[in-house]
Amino acid sequence: MRVSEIGEFGLIEALNAALPEKVRQDRRLRLGIGDDAAVWLPAQYEAVIITTDSLVEGVHFRLDWTRWRSLGHKALAVNISDIAAMGGAPRIATVSLALTGQERVADLVALYRGMGRLAARNGTLIAGGDIVASPNAFAIHVTVVGQSRFGRFLIRSGARPGDLIAVTGTIGASAAGLRLLDLPADDPRRQATTAGLLITAHLEPEPRVQLGRILNLHHASSAMDLSDGLFGDLPKILKASNVRAMVETDRLPVAAAIRALFRDEWLDLATRGGEDYELLFTAAPDQMDAIIADAATQYGQPITVIGAILPPDAGAPLLTLVDSEGEEQPIDPGAFDHFQ
Amino acid sequence: MRVSEIGEFGLIEALNAALPEKVRQDRRLRLGIGDDAAVWLPAQYEAVIITTDSLVEGVHFRLDWTRWRSLGHKALAVNISDIAAMGGAPRIATVSLALTGQERVADLVALYRGMGRLAARNGTLIAGGDIVASPNAFAIHVTVVGQSRFGRFLIRSGARPGDLIAVTGTIGASAAGLRLLDLPADDPRRQATTAGLLITAHLEPEPRVQLGRILNLHHASSAMDLSDGLFGDLPKILKASNVRAMVETDRLPVAAAIRALFRDEWLDLATRGGEDYELLFTAAPDQMDAIIADAATQYGQPITVIGAILPPDAGAPLLTLVDSEGEEQPIDPGAFDHFQ
Repeated sequence: MRVSEIGEFGLIEALNAALPEKVRQDRRLRLGIGDDAAVWLPAQYEAVIITTDSLVEGVHFRLDWTRWRSLGHKALAVNISDIAAMGGAPRIATVSLALTGQERVADLVALYRGMGRLAARNGTLIAGGDIVASPNAFAIHVTVVGQSRFGRFLIRSGARPGDLIAVTGTIGASAAGLRLLDLPADDPRRQATTAGLLITAHLEPEPRVQLGRILNLHHASSAMDLSDGLFGDLPKILKASNVRAMVETDRLPVAAAIRALFRDEWLDLATRGGEDYELLFTAAPDQMDAIIADAATQYGQPITVIGAILPPDAGAPLLTLVDSEGEEQPIDPGAFDHFQ
Repeated sequence: MRVSEIGEFGLIEALNAALPEKVRQDRRLRLGIGDDAAVWLPAQYEAVIITTDSLVEGVHFRLDWTRWRSLGHKALAVNISDIAAMGGAPRIATVSLALTGQERVADLVALYRGMGRLAARNGTLIAGGDIVASPNAFAIHVTVVGQSRFGRFLIRSGARPGDLIAVTGTIGASAAGLRLLDLPADDPRRQATTAGLLITAHLEPEPRVQLGRILNLHHASSAMDLSDGLFGDLPKILKASNVRAMVETDRLPVAAAIRALFRDEWLDLATRGGEDYELLFTAAPDQMDAIIADAATQYGQPITVIGAILPPDAGAPLLTLVDSEGEEQPIDPGAFDHFQ
């Protein structure tokens, strides 16, 4: 059954039915799917956080590489990740699908199942949206509205000289997974035991909501999520905070599998690969200790210090990489541009 | 200069510069364009209203018929209209552009100017968004977050037998304007003095935020905005409220110009044309009087009673149209389906 056969209203019913009950309604959602808009009662004295991100077929994903369920996961995950990077709680998602009409209803139901599972794990409601026709390619646009916690939120501009720089989890896995997907199916590297994990890191990144809460609780001085790679994103914090930084190659948390599978490229994948959706943040040394301890004891999640914030100096490079031999290398801060 | 020449980051700067200052920042927006997400402090004890709507090239608009400035207006207007239909105040908009890269920067700046002007008139901030590549067609996706007023909001499901049914402004103008755009440029009907007004009604509909506030203040029993035409939308209120209705042909507020230009079709344009973005609502007779009086004295805006809500009756049609001779005609409630 295709969308053009079941029609817009039949599709909306099928998609809603694909969501777990707890993702469709709770006591703070006053009105959800079906009215002109969703109505939500935020906790008093907390700020509201709004973010939006789109995935377009042929640009952000290839339907021959990703399962629909993974695509639903990722479309919501990249938005929840932005809320996590603010230290907030993701509360309400609206979803806009641009469809050619030739999509299979079962595929879109799988997409919604992937979204619903991630939403349920993060206490996020899916409160309707919009379905529109699209002449050529399938696209999904998600907006997530969240709420600050502890009466505050994390920003990019608060890094200060003396702060340490850290990342959650590991970096480079998503880029390595993408590289593996691009190899012929019979390439021996795709058969490696760890290949599946790297590919999953690319197709179904896990937003770090719990860790964002810990960063906010312990006053991290700045934070963002890693979507453009360490060398694309860290300069955004440095510029916003008017500081410099040094990062040590030996400290970067890169999976041994990536170093083994991509001997010549692992550093590039880890620093310029992008789409890790880990949190990159800075904190004063005492706060950093508390954050690392809480992340380990509460969630068993590793956090790795990779460098330090330095005072501004117009004559010095914004970002310096220090290798095993202590050699310093200035880093060109180019982020990925979708059009250039 | 095209998007592919200026690049993503240059484009973001150009678009932000196109917005009036009051649309980019106010004391309740804590953090806008440039961080991971927008942060907003809603008024305490009011609910948050979330709506999203997309316009896709070739489906919702034709670039040979609409100016970019009008397109920016309309993309924001259809979202603000959903907030107006809830009786709320539109506060924060996020904008996601899907671009082929071949768009002219000056056109996108005009798009933002159109959005900015409407946003400024309605006290709405444009707080960032997302720019993504799109392989074939241009699309714009807008999400608006608003706030309820008087501690309450308007819904579709509250119409009760004895309530009157009314619409703001006039109906059919947008559909008539669309019909005029489809005529050859030398068709005499396009030269009519009023043709320009009808075309503007289609290209730049004005969301009825102030009237929505009055409906909410005076406890209208149900409300929605007219996007699918009276006969497409009124049945949604009737089904949600479990009631029936009768509407009188002679009461429908249809501009004389439409009756003159489209002698055989004016009733169809007015009842099935869609995209008027006027408010359709119900209210008890006393409340209706207060609403009509306030709309006239505060804003000089006409509101027209067009019919009445009837008790449910399984054997009778959901919606009946009564013509000048008192003849009753059951109405088929089919709404427009984008895929069937």
